[in-house]
Amino acid sequence: MKKKVLIIGGGFGGLSAAKALGSYPDLFEVHLYDRRNYHLFQPLLYQVATAGLSPSDIAVPIRSILSGYRNVSVVLEEVTSINPQAKTISTPKGEVAYDYLISACGSRHSYFGKDEWEDFAPGLKTLEMATEIRRRILTSFESAEIETDAQEKQAAMNFVVIGGGPTGVETAGAIIEIATNTLARDFRNINPQETKVYLVEAGPKILASFSSDLSRSGLEDLQKIGVQVLTNSMVVNVDDKKVTIKNQTETFDIPTRTVIWAAGVKASSLNQTIGSPTDRAGRVMIKSDLTLPNHPETFVIGDQANFLIDEKHSLPGLAPVAIQQGRHAAKNIVRSALGKNMKSFVYFDKGQMATIGTKLAVMQFKGIEAHGFIAWISWLFVHIMYLIGFKNRVLVMFQWFWSYITFNRGSRLIMQKDWKK
Amino acid sequence: MKKKVLIIGGGFGGLSAAKALGSYPDLFEVHLYDRRNYHLFQPLLYQVATAGLSPSDIAVPIRSILSGYRNVSVVLEEVTSINPQAKTISTPKGEVAYDYLISACGSRHSYFGKDEWEDFAPGLKTLEMATEIRRRILTSFESAEIETDAQEKQAAMNFVVIGGGPTGVETAGAIIEIATNTLARDFRNINPQETKVYLVEAGPKILASFSSDLSRSGLEDLQKIGVQVLTNSMVVNVDDKKVTIKNQTETFDIPTRTVIWAAGVKASSLNQTIGSPTDRAGRVMIKSDLTLPNHPETFVIGDQANFLIDEKHSLPGLAPVAIQQGRHAAKNIVRSALGKNMKSFVYFDKGQMATIGTKLAVMQFKGIEAHGFIAWISWLFVHIMYLIGFKNRVLVMFQWFWSYITFNRGSRLIMQKDWKK
Repeated sequence: MKKKVLIIGGGFGGLSAAKALGSYPDLFEVHLYDRRNYHLFQPLLYQVATAGLSPSDIAVPIRSILSGYRNVSVVLEEVTSINPQAKTISTPKGEVAYDYLISACGSRHSYFGKDEWEDFAPGLKTLEMATEIRRRILTSFESAEIETDAQEKQAAMNFVVIGGGPTGVETAGAIIEIATNTLARDFRNINPQETKVYLVEAGPKILASFSSDLSRSGLEDLQKIGVQVLTNSMVVNVDDKKVTIKNQTETFDIPTRTVIWAAGVKASSLNQTIGSPTDRAGRVMIKSDLTLPNHPETFVIGDQANFLIDEKHSLPGLAPVAIQQGRHAAKNIVRSALGKNMKSFVYFDKGQMATIGTKLAVMQFKGIEAHGFIAWISWLFVHIMYLIGFKNRVLVMFQWFWSYITFNRGSRLIMQKDWKK
Repeated sequence: MKKKVLIIGGGFGGLSAAKALGSYPDLFEVHLYDRRNYHLFQPLLYQVATAGLSPSDIAVPIRSILSGYRNVSVVLEEVTSINPQAKTISTPKGEVAYDYLISACGSRHSYFGKDEWEDFAPGLKTLEMATEIRRRILTSFESAEIETDAQEKQAAMNFVVIGGGPTGVETAGAIIEIATNTLARDFRNINPQETKVYLVEAGPKILASFSSDLSRSGLEDLQKIGVQVLTNSMVVNVDDKKVTIKNQTETFDIPTRTVIWAAGVKASSLNQTIGSPTDRAGRVMIKSDLTLPNHPETFVIGDQANFLIDEKHSLPGLAPVAIQQGRHAAKNIVRSALGKNMKSFVYFDKGQMATIGTKLAVMQFKGIEAHGFIAWISWLFVHIMYLIGFKNRVLVMFQWFWSYITFNRGSRLIMQKDWKK
């Protein structure tokens, strides 16, 4: 009798688990649930937001990724709760029982209790958010072109990115490059050099997860290409006209039409239904074998979980963590189904990297650190390598090559929200 | 003193006029108005709707197309009326005076007075409509996969395309190919062979603008790949559950979740503001030099205009007509500015073509007719050639080649309407 394994989420963690379990068609019947029909390559989402790539370049239907695994089926449906006691999950269509569960629902943005800011400051988590941000950035330049009032014109050319981690840095760098390279030729009534991109970070430095050296060279590179970096700067308000910032000495406004949120994240709200302890970011505390305490058949992995590496530190929310945990959860399920003991998860550290602009990036891997051109080439290589699907790799490579030689960005469409307009 | 030329619309007509006038920087200051920031290659829009291509593959920012013409500026703004008497146009920001105007606003769908059908039967005119149709098609298959009721399941696998012209034929052919080629491998609980695509045409034959022979071979090819063609069939109602059809003998319902409108078009509603005679489809009647009667400085071209070739016949709404008229209007403006007489427009007939499926198409050009593989290769070649931008040509060619060898479609994303979801 085959065991029934449910997987929630078609991100890096869920997919790697599904593929691993797909190799045991005699042992398992696997159902992967997701609200969306595609796997999204989140590390390149900022390039969709900044008109460098199209949505479909970084998204692949989950069905086609898994179509070769005949014991895996994909269900396009939202999961509304997880009930480890009963070993069931709930969907709008009813309850589904499982023998094993791997939950890998990822994270979403946290506005630190100020959810009303979301309207004015979308985050970068979904394709819809990315195309909304693209719409706002491009519309801002268009309205600056026809605006006659000088103050309004400058407000339309001010962009504020909140959060100095890799996503914030990559987005800020890409916006300033749109202005200085791509748009300079195309507009008649604005001077793209007057574009101001502010990167606002509450802490004392940007790229804080990197070494001090890399954080500093990242800062210098960003400033070199023209980004205004504001550290030790708290965002105290966001509305449709401005961002209000407080630093050690003063409180001031930046008038702007385009704000991008790259600050905090919190785990999926599904965690509140599990009834198991969570950390401050809402992540479920998991055991070393990736299961919930007292529920050896229920696994939680990736951004949704907090995996402690020592008393104070947890693994970061990175793709390699999710991928390795997905694979490990699958292995433990195979061991359990065969009556063997489950093993503890050990993370193989793949380092981290962030791009700052064309030919500029930072990376660290084990003891090695690099920045500038070499880091940028490595960044390109790693991202192409991890992208799923040969077709998407070719499309992305060609578009990057094209942007590199023409300074043009491939996907500068302002699409309307209402299809009937 | 330079003359001020306004162009409304960045479609085939407006763009070809702008490029032609862009070669006379000493004579003209040109402003091109469009509500959208991109030129859309409408002949391939059905491929976006059927998940073959991405929106940005067939859309190019108008600014970048015209960036080399320093006397042409692009204004992203809606035009709300044309006043030939006063020689002005109105926008939400105010009135703008012109020395010459070229209006090229195209057409939109006509639901023959049943505008309430639009919600259930989007047409294929904009990228937003195409992505909405793509969302509906893909969502239908997904809901069939999890539907347990047999009737509901079949309804989710019924697709109705209304209108047997080239757009309707191309769309119907593409949907049946998605089902039979692409999706067959990916689903577990549906048999894609049970997909029914209905092409509904009120008249006695499909592809009526083609010769009888081509119309018949188009019909045979469509039936061969599995499309149910219903001719002499009037649509009498459309709602969220079904399409009601009346033919010579009976009235019946097709239960369906996905209806695509490819039937009638009417000219831009801007025509109602001009105060000049229009035809039944709302197109403005124009003189042989492409101007309005009594207004030799106001040109209307392309789908927005009715250009009579004899007492009964007008030029069809095709890209080559708009392109040639745009160029001709520009030439007449140059002649007028130099004090010369304007010339009558003569259409150089480029024929017409429609694709039915992979390796199947129909075409006619002057006396030559072809169908099947040769017509299909010609169709590919002509569409790549007319597509604007080297980058887009490469991207589209690669994706076609990829689809051809893998039977996979490139852009199968179901995107949500609300970015916050």
